[in-house]
Amino acid sequence: MLKNVHFLEKPEEEELKQRLGKAREKLFGQQMLLKDHKVPVLVLVEGWGTAGKGSLIGNLIQNIDPRFFKVAPMEDAPDEEEKRKPFLYRYFSKIPEAGKFMFLDSGWMGEMTGMCLHEGMSQKDYEQRIESIRRFERQLTDNGYLVVKLFCHISQKEQKKRIKELIGNIDTKWRVSEEDKWQNKHYEKCGLVFDRYLEDTHAPSAPWYVIDAKSKKWAELQALDILTQGIEIALQNQSLAVPLLQNVFPLVKMPKLAEVALDQSMEDKEYKGELKTLQFQLQELHNRLYRMKVPVVILFEGWDAAGKGGNIKRITEALDPRGFEVHPIASPEPHEKARHYLWRFWTRLPKTGHIAIFDRSWYGRVMVERLEGFCSENDWKRAYNEMNEFEKELHDWGAVIIKFWVQIDKDTQLARFEERRDTPEKRWKITDEDWRNRQKWDQYEVAVDEMIEKTSTSYAPWHILESVDKKYARIKALKIVIEEIQKALKG
Amino acid sequence: MLKNVHFLEKPEEEELKQRLGKAREKLFGQQMLLKDHKVPVLVLVEGWGTAGKGSLIGNLIQNIDPRFFKVAPMEDAPDEEEKRKPFLYRYFSKIPEAGKFMFLDSGWMGEMTGMCLHEGMSQKDYEQRIESIRRFERQLTDNGYLVVKLFCHISQKEQKKRIKELIGNIDTKWRVSEEDKWQNKHYEKCGLVFDRYLEDTHAPSAPWYVIDAKSKKWAELQALDILTQGIEIALQNQSLAVPLLQNVFPLVKMPKLAEVALDQSMEDKEYKGELKTLQFQLQELHNRLYRMKVPVVILFEGWDAAGKGGNIKRITEALDPRGFEVHPIASPEPHEKARHYLWRFWTRLPKTGHIAIFDRSWYGRVMVERLEGFCSENDWKRAYNEMNEFEKELHDWGAVIIKFWVQIDKDTQLARFEERRDTPEKRWKITDEDWRNRQKWDQYEVAVDEMIEKTSTSYAPWHILESVDKKYARIKALKIVIEEIQKALKG
Repeated sequence: MLKNVHFLEKPEEEELKQRLGKAREKLFGQQMLLKDHKVPVLVLVEGWGTAGKGSLIGNLIQNIDPRFFKVAPMEDAPDEEEKRKPFLYRYFSKIPEAGKFMFLDSGWMGEMTGMCLHEGMSQKDYEQRIESIRRFERQLTDNGYLVVKLFCHISQKEQKKRIKELIGNIDTKWRVSEEDKWQNKHYEKCGLVFDRYLEDTHAPSAPWYVIDAKSKKWAELQALDILTQGIEIALQNQSLAVPLLQNVFPLVKMPKLAEVALDQSMEDKEYKGELKTLQFQLQELHNRLYRMKVPVVILFEGWDAAGKGGNIKRITEALDPRGFEVHPIASPEPHEKARHYLWRFWTRLPKTGHIAIFDRSWYGRVMVERLEGFCSENDWKRAYNEMNEFEKELHDWGAVIIKFWVQIDKDTQLARFEERRDTPEKRWKITDEDWRNRQKWDQYEVAVDEMIEKTSTSYAPWHILESVDKKYARIKALKIVIEEIQKALKG
Repeated sequence: MLKNVHFLEKPEEEELKQRLGKAREKLFGQQMLLKDHKVPVLVLVEGWGTAGKGSLIGNLIQNIDPRFFKVAPMEDAPDEEEKRKPFLYRYFSKIPEAGKFMFLDSGWMGEMTGMCLHEGMSQKDYEQRIESIRRFERQLTDNGYLVVKLFCHISQKEQKKRIKELIGNIDTKWRVSEEDKWQNKHYEKCGLVFDRYLEDTHAPSAPWYVIDAKSKKWAELQALDILTQGIEIALQNQSLAVPLLQNVFPLVKMPKLAEVALDQSMEDKEYKGELKTLQFQLQELHNRLYRMKVPVVILFEGWDAAGKGGNIKRITEALDPRGFEVHPIASPEPHEKARHYLWRFWTRLPKTGHIAIFDRSWYGRVMVERLEGFCSENDWKRAYNEMNEFEKELHDWGAVIIKFWVQIDKDTQLARFEERRDTPEKRWKITDEDWRNRQKWDQYEVAVDEMIEKTSTSYAPWHILESVDKKYARIKALKIVIEEIQKALKG
């Protein structure tokens, strides 16, 4: 795109001024519409060093109420915390809320092309990363985000001139980085890497726009025109449905819930002995995980009163509290609901070497959200692939992913509900909603079967815990956790 | 995609039968909805030789009323007529009407991968062709088409077995082509070429689906599921707006209409002399064009009564009637309106060596259709790029493209309207609509200025004919036509 880019001619000063005025007004007027239509806008500003990315963003936000935008300056390298998270964490965690803007001053493109230029990347790694960026951007636009990608372009000569001018002045000298100078020296090489990246991530739903950044005002006008035009179009699309993609992940064949035998049980004595041994083993593994910086994600889904809490307790008892976190997942808070539904999970990922345990999880999308109509049919049908993609990211990052479905039958649930209801100290555990959900058991069973069938990938399969006898389930869960961690530590 | 494809497991016979029944019913039920919602569906079935593409299509159409579908078997190489048209002509000309299905038994993928395998393609040619295919598919989906792309996959072993079985039977022997045998011998090489193509044209808006074609019924079920699911989603999207892409074509700077001086004129005597000379020259060039197989596309747009017809007459007078065609473009017929708006121009393209003259053209999209609200704002704003892409296809094919805007002022139009009205033999040339359009002169002028600015590419720029003096305009038009053809014959 850079090689063949054809810029429009810069208008005369007077015309430029007039058009700028109009474009600014337009953006100003659009903010309330965006809010009403709940469209989130992510603006990624990339480009050459000294091309004026920062000041471009500075100009754009002049026209937006401060309550409606944020700016994330990303020019610093990832910090220690971010380095211990997956590549996309930095960016996924910064996506805006519905109706608001987020401006990124350099982002995943800058990080990726920087790696290509300075560390080198194998063809395979490059392709994998591009694929994951494409998925990220597609997940955003599929879920109603407007993603505007701008690349600020200047010539080698112009960049050289700017660097010289900035360095020549004591007040601006600090604004020239070593990277800027390096780019200018290796302008052609950088151009090739940028160009390849732009081509590889140019999608009709989130296209690149190359901006002629030689003049600040002209660059601002180009950016405003692109941004306001993108907003106009996003406002026209209400609850867009997008094609469902074919599964490309290896799936493990799983039984239907109705086929799961539930008659396993365990004697109390055996249970106590096993529990002690396994917890000791897990404790030891936790230390090794920590040293080897392997992140672990464990999630529990299952029927109400199936025993998720008790399972989690038996695992956490064995863990050093500094190295794990339990995330009980209820319905989303307003600020979570206003973002891509995976945002609240991306932001709860463990650091490398840590364990995150989710008591309910992102799979709510294809169970409660599906059945209660909290999202559209296209949304939940698309979600199977989105979750497989999400877990693929975690897997590629090196995470161990363990997913449990805690299974009981309808009668067992009734007995436990009644016990809760009739035991004063357990009464808090049972709500009207639990009774309502119980009435939809059959619909849930269809949804759970479909979920398990479509998201049991080889890298993150479901494990079914037969939990009519809770002791049996707990021991089975501990054994699976230990086994999966051991596999990862060996691999 | 082929390398990493993970197929779902084929269901047991009984389940397969049940699911097939349901899926067939679903497709049957969807046909009327598609008709009501005016969604056109293009199903491209590609795949290995002997994978059963034809019989798959045969099975799918069992569930569709014959009035609602067509099948285009493309397995033969392009015929003589098609060879003298641009690559995409074969396919663009076959796109379905709104509410109807078109099934292509192998198509642009087959043709392209065949070229790669048998004729070889330079990297540059490959990339250009891929780009043009991507544009084609995007233009369809942007304009509301559902494009379903299926690739029928079988293993080398399975293909070998099928070829042997088919050849072994005297009744089926003819069904094995040399190409099928060649593919089987060079299975791996073919797989690489197919795979690369699938990756390069896998777009979220028109994704590929790879079908496990080992069993016929199972293949049918997979295809039905993908097709009905795609239809379901297409039905949810009403008047979708899509992002406008940045112009990537080199533009020529053009004046605004208001800046065009209209005081040029020509003496009658000079006119007659020049006309004769130029027409003689053009006649001679037409012969050379014909021999060298260069196609020419000339189009005239301009104000009512500006003199388009007279200009066209002076050109055609010089041409051999066997080598040109004039296409007067009025509002589209119902069968044209039911398709992509460029379809009626794709199907009117000249053969190589021929001249097509359009009296009005595809630019109606950004003039009358824009101003009269015959298409959405997103539609006409997108059209500038679509036309540049269309003309780029023609240019890459080798066509000379000459676009005229015939310019007069408002007073001149009034004088000519009045003369037409008051002269009985000219009265047919003036209609109420002409008077209505005249009232919108200023709006048209804005639209024409924008059109000329955005579609004057270096390979197909606009030429403005100052036509207050018709003689001057005619001579200028002839000169430009001659000059452009001469350039092409030299180049």
